Amino acid sequence: MSGACAANHPTSKLVRTQGVTAPAGFRATGISAGIKATGKLDLALVFNEGPDHHAAGVFTRNQIKAAPVQWSQQVLTTGRLRAVILNSGGANACTGPLGFQDTHATAEALAAALSDWGTETGAIEVAVCSTGLIGDRLPMDKVLAGVTEIVHEMAGGLTGGEEAARAIMTTDTVPKQVALHAENWTVGGMAKGAGMMAPSLATMLVVLTTDAVADATALDTALRRAAAKTFDRLDIDGSCSTNDTVLLLSSGASEVTPSQDELDAAVLAVCDDLCAQLQADAEGVTKKVTITVAGALNDDEALVAARAVARDSLVKTALFGSDPNWGRVLASVGIAPVTLDPQRISVSFNGSPVCVDGAGAPGAREVDLSGDVIEVLIDLASGSGTASVRTTDLSHAYVEENSAYSS
Amino acid sequence: MSGACAANHPTSKLVRTQGVTAPAGFRATGISAGIKATGKLDLALVFNEGPDHHAAGVFTRNQIKAAPVQWSQQVLTTGRLRAVILNSGGANACTGPLGFQDTHATAEALAAALSDWGTETGAIEVAVCSTGLIGDRLPMDKVLAGVTEIVHEMAGGLTGGEEAARAIMTTDTVPKQVALHAENWTVGGMAKGAGMMAPSLATMLVVLTTDAVADATALDTALRRAAAKTFDRLDIDGSCSTNDTVLLLSSGASEVTPSQDELDAAVLAVCDDLCAQLQADAEGVTKKVTITVAGALNDDEALVAARAVARDSLVKTALFGSDPNWGRVLASVGIAPVTLDPQRISVSFNGSPVCVDGAGAPGAREVDLSGDVIEVLIDLASGSGTASVRTTDLSHAYVEENSAYSS
Repeated sequence: MSGACAANHPTSKLVRTQGVTAPAGFRATGISAGIKATGKLDLALVFNEGPDHHAAGVFTRNQIKAAPVQWSQQVLTTGRLRAVILNSGGANACTGPLGFQDTHATAEALAAALSDWGTETGAIEVAVCSTGLIGDRLPMDKVLAGVTEIVHEMAGGLTGGEEAARAIMTTDTVPKQVALHAENWTVGGMAKGAGMMAPSLATMLVVLTTDAVADATALDTALRRAAAKTFDRLDIDGSCSTNDTVLLLSSGASEVTPSQDELDAAVLAVCDDLCAQLQADAEGVTKKVTITVAGALNDDEALVAARAVARDSLVKTALFGSDPNWGRVLASVGIAPVTLDPQRISVSFNGSPVCVDGAGAPGAREVDLSGDVIEVLIDLASGSGTASVRTTDLSHAYVEENSAYSS
Repeated sequence: MSGACAANHPTSKLVRTQGVTAPAGFRATGISAGIKATGKLDLALVFNEGPDHHAAGVFTRNQIKAAPVQWSQQVLTTGRLRAVILNSGGANACTGPLGFQDTHATAEALAAALSDWGTETGAIEVAVCSTGLIGDRLPMDKVLAGVTEIVHEMAGGLTGGEEAARAIMTTDTVPKQVALHAENWTVGGMAKGAGMMAPSLATMLVVLTTDAVADATALDTALRRAAAKTFDRLDIDGSCSTNDTVLLLSSGASEVTPSQDELDAAVLAVCDDLCAQLQADAEGVTKKVTITVAGALNDDEALVAARAVARDSLVKTALFGSDPNWGRVLASVGIAPVTLDPQRISVSFNGSPVCVDGAGAPGAREVDLSGDVIEVLIDLASGSGTASVRTTDLSHAYVEENSAYSS
């Protein structure tokens, strides 16, 4: 996907030392508001100075949506955002009507603080994101005090973006940010977590910013296209969190209006890179795995099949053990509701054929999977559909992190 | 389910020291044919002396079906079986046309040996089951020699049934068998593995026998009804193997003709007990978990929701850690494609409410889940549909067994 994008932007360049404040017109920061017992950074702000304030968002498909998701979905119907306030240390999910009031109060408090600071802002221009354990109310005294404080800390430099990226970390071991500089405009982003690696903690939150001139429709189109090929295909354990949120804000500060194709490509490149960072830092990961299904009846069936394999615990434990157990790959693809002919399926691991036409290839048991990158290619030989899903292995560390968490 | 069954059979009794040879008219045994490198028992025979030879079977829904499944499905279209030959030490799956020829040759060899022994038998009266690593051919010299030998070893006593139950074990740590004695007739059974706990090894194979007078249609009805409520609701990691097979044979030797209801209840009781044994001996199990969904729109939606929770790696790792992390239960049920109102869902662990109307209950984080049995009850409060699924936790031992297996 990066390849396709680079082709569209011969001069564009991805830089991982910059994030949401790389584009002109954005300020950000992260502070410690005392929401996390550890005293680590736990509150982040991304502020759009304009002149434009267009925005789009995609949210979890989970029917159980956290209060901040319900709030932000409502706010986004206007296609406008001035600011995003994010906290780690608590998901504010399954907290009932009082939890929703807490989110609302947070947005009101930020709007008031920004208005006091000199930028007239309404709560309806503020998106809220939360991540942490499901089911507990947030310590609202700390959140509200933090919201007032953070407005005075935000900065336009690159430091602000990195502080924000740090403040949304939970089980993440490194902050995740990237910026893509096109000719005279930029897209930046930060991310934490990945899918539902740990729903109570590792919610995926992503904020993307651009100084391009792009209205809400253009942003929405670019974001949906990019998410479908990136975040939707990063599948660590088959679930999505109650809090997953991806937002894209435009300031128009570059005064450059890219074509939809250019915007799509830039947003895709940033999302793709953030996905790679999320995969590499997934809980308990020891192998970065890509499952590609080719030769499916169509792309949709290829994706269904790839996802089925990516979610299979037995495939994932085998890969953790560097075990070229291709039989498990066949067994998992055989469960997927897709068209296939068992006698025609072929599988390769890192380019080495392990199964040809449904039966083992010579040397299949000796393929070396000891490295930390594993490419699984499954050819169904039934059509021209193709799709890739990124996942990880299922390791002792995954079990450890996820069994020991809230206790 | 056992309860419902006992109500139908006030005088019936389950005995776990007996299995497939408990009903009159059946002989069985297990031998070491040298298929397993360890020299352990690896070949089992169940022989129906008659007078009837009716039979029914249910098979894996995996599109990738092992050669013995393809063979046995074909054979069962006649509704007749004289014998079942089962091997551990190799699944004979993904072995191409030659693998199918191996299965055919095994059935022919057993038919010839039984004919020589004095019972005229055709290969079409012989079902074949295999379990072990996917993708390798069986050592046919050993299999064929074993098939000839085993006919001379089979015995009518209870020892024969237990030897057979031992010979189909793979990662199983104990043989699994049970018999239900109704008034003047009996149903017996043996089982190994459970679902797709390890597709390359822990295929579920089950052979059930009865001396009731019951034709193929009655057997098929009883077996499908029982499997739908038992084996189909035992879900260790969401998959089914290339080799899963459940067979039911009737000899008519008791000369008792139970009603369909009586037959259904007896077969259900035996299947239910074998399921409990499979769950208790699942790979890496430290907790026996039952997920019950009540208050769903209908029973089908209840089952879909229960299965979604039973397959969720994050719920399963939390239970391994004895962690009453009910938020993960809500997050997993929220992904299921069923009708629900997030504000009305309630959850209890072992009878203690942890979530009421979508929000945490007082003391939820302190519920003690340190025992080895965990009952999760999810009430969707949307209707009267209900369903239960048995599963296990996701432990270090599961990862260990499944990562270390074929290497």
